[in-house]
This record gives sequence, structure tokens and C-alpha cells, in this order.
Amino acid sequence: MSRNNAQYYEGQQCSRQWKAFLSAFASEFASKGETKDLRAFMHQLGRTMANEYTITDGSSLQALEDKMNSIWAELDWGWVELSEEAEALVVAHRASPFKMAFGVGALSWSPALLEGIYAQWFESLGMDPTLRLLQKGDALEGGQLFVYELKKQIDEPSYFTRR
Amino acid sequence: MSRNNAQYYEGQQCSRQWKAFLSAFASEFASKGETKDLRAFMHQLGRTMANEYTITDGSSLQALEDKMNSIWAELDWGWVELSEEAEALVVAHRASPFKMAFGVGALSWSPALLEGIYAQWFESLGMDPTLRLLQKGDALEGGQLFVYELKKQIDEPSYFTRR
Amino acid sequence: MSRNNAQYYEGQQCSRQWKAFLSAFASEFASKGETKDLRAFMHQLGRTMANEYTITDGSSLQALEDKMNSIWAELDWGWVELSEEAEALVVAHRASPFKMAFGVGALSWSPALLEGIYAQWFESLGMDPTLRLLQKGDALEGGQLFVYELKKQIDEPSYFTRR
Amino acid sequence: MSRNNAQYYEGQQCSRQWKAFLSAFASEFASKGETKDLRAFMHQLGRTMANEYTITDGSSLQALEDKMNSIWAELDWGWVELSEEAEALVVAHRASPFKMAFGVGALSWSPALLEGIYAQWFESLGMDPTLRLLQKGDALEGGQLFVYELKKQIDEPSYFTRR
Repeated sequence: MSRNNAQYYEGQQCSRQWKAFLSAFASEFASKGETKDLRAFMHQLGRTMANEYTITDGSSLQALEDKMNSIWAELDWGWVELSEEAEALVVAHRASPFKMAFGVGALSWSPALLEGIYAQWFESLGMDPTLRLLQKGDALEGGQLFVYELKKQIDEPSYFTRR
Repeated sequence: MSRNNAQYYEGQQCSRQWKAFLSAFASEFASKGETKDLRAFMHQLGRTMANEYTITDGSSLQALEDKMNSIWAELDWGWVELSEEAEALVVAHRASPFKMAFGVGALSWSPALLEGIYAQWFESLGMDPTLRLLQKGDALEGGQLFVYELKKQIDEPSYFTRR
Repeated sequence: MSRNNAQYYEGQQCSRQWKAFLSAFASEFASKGETKDLRAFMHQLGRTMANEYTITDGSSLQALEDKMNSIWAELDWGWVELSEEAEALVVAHRASPFKMAFGVGALSWSPALLEGIYAQWFESLGMDPTLRLLQKGDALEGGQLFVYELKKQIDEPSYFTRR
Repeated sequence: MSRNNAQYYEGQQCSRQWKAFLSAFASEFASKGETKDLRAFMHQLGRTMANEYTITDGSSLQALEDKMNSIWAELDWGWVELSEEAEALVVAHRASPFKMAFGVGALSWSPALLEGIYAQWFESLGMDPTLRLLQKGDALEGGQLFVYELKKQIDEPSYFTRR
């Protein structure tokens, strides 16, 4: 079978109303700067977007994940899993519409939008100020998985100089 | 992982505008008759719906499949694969929103809607009148795959007495 | 100008995913019974749908209207105004997608869906059991306004024998 | 009545999936430059977007308007009227989702997106190269009407120095 349900759903997910705009935006925007500048803008945009939503329920990791997922379901922006590892809190975000909206070529910078949102949300919950939330590695699973880590950043002075 | 992308996408697919209506419709409707009557109504409804669309490109099986898939993509009703087997043309329809719209309990009759659509489309293409298009077996793959067959129906006097 | 914004918006409102289905449904369904039976089915369907939502905030008419409007906005089913008159509570529902979904010909029975929803909601709020909620007159403003009244029904033994 | 259908529809029009993103984008973007720079970027973005669509039917003004409106209906971006006046072709675009997407504050620059799209489309039709398409005045009718003119631009050296 040359096609599967995942591809079908992925192709349908991005709203028709803005798909051509977002694709053109990504193309014009990418021509204006380097990846780190694009990431910085998207990260900041994510922080601004995050303030539209109130994330209060930090009573448990599961409650927090549920709250975030109710926002993602409302936007149809995919879903998240939070898990604690030894050195970090891992934020695995799947099934975002970013690949279809901004294009495959934008996967090096578009996930910084979610980085900004998660960073802002964790800060608003009063997290330890020595922690930083950063994307870990590149997009995985054909652009359908972005992994972020919230952990102590020893040698990284800011979110914006990572790449 | 207790969840996956397929479940996420399936949960998002049905339009918010009509989901509660369709669920209530399925519940009220199912209380009014037996499965074969429900199937007959849905089959007829499918035939009426089919007339909204013109399926002309029967130049090749692939062209026909492409034309059907452009309609399904427009409606976000999933996707179809047509394949020729020895005794039948097989119509495999995946990723319809029916399970989410009409409910799991309606999977015994809701696929008759697509049966009616495909039957009407194949008839409009001038198919051999000794052929009939009928659903083969129950919904598969957790309600995400419906299989129909277009073939000579020897001992089945009508679409409506199958079950 | 042969066109206006109202017509544009009205034409866009009904979800593409279910428009052809709902139109075919209305056509098949209307052929099965008389207006009063169609209204009875739609009214009952509305009552079933109403149970998907919890309407608790009867602290003021405005609070109740706001709660209902948040549900209507979520569904994109229009908006309501509640007003008290001498003999009745008037429920004026505007901008529903029913004309585009079920067709102009269905405007004699499709508003019974909202009649059932409002009836169920007011009953769930513990209203005086001598009150009945019924549609008053036909659809107005080109099918964009349905008026319902909640009042003492002296000579009407049930919702279902009104027409 | 403190509310009307136009306000209701306007509030519903922008896709939930991108509304918060577009609002944050407008806010961040507006902080980066002056109105003329924002207009230049949006105009260019519009030109890029325009290339996603083929506008060929220039056989009559009505045919052209119809073709454009079929694209706008597909995107739910409103509707256009083309009319010939003594010195100019007037392009009146109504019911765009821009006010809800980018905000009221962005109405000084967001309409440049449509300016770029129309400019590119008219150029692709082989218009007289001495003609220019420019927005005329500010947004009208509460941000629901943008007027553009295609005419000889004597003293305007480029699209981008207009404001």
C-alpha cells in the first residue's frame, strides 16, 4: 500500500483557511534570516501565544499534561506526553500541523514556536529559575515528533544562542 | 504509550459543528428500527448524496480512485483504494469519520452510507447490471476500514435483505 | 449590489464535511413522514443532544443566555437572546446553520431540533412543570431567526401535536 | 439589540487552529518595523501566495470576479467585486477574516496581503505595465471592506513607498 491513514490525516489537519498563507509566510520569512534568528522569532511568538492560555494545574504531571492536551485538542495542534527522567522533564509533542503548515524545509525552526509556548508555560508555573526548556535534537518521526527538555542549562546563557 | 497519533487524529476528524447532532441522530435513529432497515435508509441516503457529485473518469481504475479520493479529501471522509480481484472489484475505504460521528454501536449500519454512494457511482458509470456493490463483512481495523465488493450477486435478490 | 456579507457568511457556515450528508438526510427524511412527525423526531433528537451539555447557570437570564451562547459559539450554531415578556419567556435564536444544512424546504420542521434542545435545557433547570417551550410561528428573517416561547400551554396537550 | 448576525459571523470566521498564532504573529511582527515595512512584507507574502493559484479567466470582468470568488470561498477569505470606473479598475474586497486574525490594530498593514495577491494576479493576466494596483485609503465598514485600485500611477515610484 503506497499510502496510509497517518499520511491521510496529516494532509487534512492544517486548516484550509491559512495553509497557503502559512506556507508563503514560511517561505518569505526563511529568506530573511538565519535559522537561529528564525528560531528566536518563533520562540518569542510562542511566548506571546502562551499568554493567551492559563496553565494552572501543576498539581501533578498528569494533570498538567491533561490541561495542555485540552488546549492542543481545541487548536488541533497535536498532543503531548510529559515524563520525568533522571536529569530532565521530557516534553514529547506529536502530531502538530507544523510540517503541513510551514513546510518540511521549516522543520529546523518551526518547532521553536512550541519551545516558546512550553517555556512560557513552565515559567508561569513558577519553575526553578535555573531550569531551561529547549528543543532536543531535530524533528523526529517524519516531522511528527518534537522533543523538548526542561533541565539545568550549564553552559547555555540564553534560549536564543542555542544554534 | 497509552495513546497514539491515529487515535488523536481520529478524535479530531469529525466536525465539531455536527458531532453532537450526528451522535444524537444515530442514537434516536437506531431505536427506530432493525439493522437491515437502518442499513436500507443509510444506503438510500448514500445514493441521494452520490448524485451531488459527478464521477465520470472511468478511463482507468487509478483515475477513478483519484477522482473519488479528491471528493473524500474535500469532505474529509477518508480515502479509498480500488483493486481488481478474480471475482470482484474491491473497494477498501479507510479513515472515514463514521465511528466518531455515529458511534461504535452504529458500525453495523453506518457503513451502508458509503455502500449507497459507491453503488450509485458505479451504476452511473454504466456498470454491468448483473453486478452489485455490497459491503463485505463487518468494519475492520477498529472501525477504520470498510470493505465493499462489486460482483455478480447470484443469490442476493436486493441490497436490502443482506443481513 | 447583488450580494452581501450576510449571504456570504451564511453560505460558508455549514461544515463542508456534513453538508451533503445533511442535505440528503433532509431530503430522504422529509419523504418518510408528515411535518408533525418530522418535528417530533427532530424535537426528540434535540432533547437527546441537549443532554450532552450541562446548563446550570440559571442565576440570571443574562448568565443563562451567556452559557447557551458559549455552547452555540463552540458549535457555530448561531446565537440566542432571552427576554421576558408579560406572558412568556421569549427565546430568539439567530444565525443557525439549519437553512444551509437541511435546506429551505426543511424550515417547517428543522427548527424543532432547537425546540427540543431548549425544552430539555429549561426542564433541567427545574422550570415550573405547567410551562411548555414551543416554537412560535415560522422561521423569520429569511430562515435566520427562530422564535420560541416558554409559557403556560392551556390547550396544547403535548409538544408533538402542535401542527 | 446589542449584537447582530454580522458580528456573530465575523467572530466565528477565523479558524480556531491559527487564530492565536496569527494574533501573536501580528503583535510580534508589528513591533519589528514601521507600517510601510510591514506593508511591504505582507505585499510580498501576498505575491508569493498568489502563485499558488492560477487566474486565467480574464475573458470578462465577471468571469474574473467569479474565478477569484471561488478561491476566496474555498479559503473563507470573503468575496470581491470588480468594477470599472473612468480612471481605474476598482477591487472591493469584503468579509476577509483579517480583522479577527491579525487584530484591529493591524488594519493599517494587513490589507497589503490582499494588495500583493491582486497585484500578482493582474500582472499574471498580462496587464498594461504602466498600471499599478494599490490599496485606496483605509479599511472601511469596520474593517470589513478593503478597496484597491488598478490604475496608472504617475507619481508613485513603487508599491512600497505609498505610506
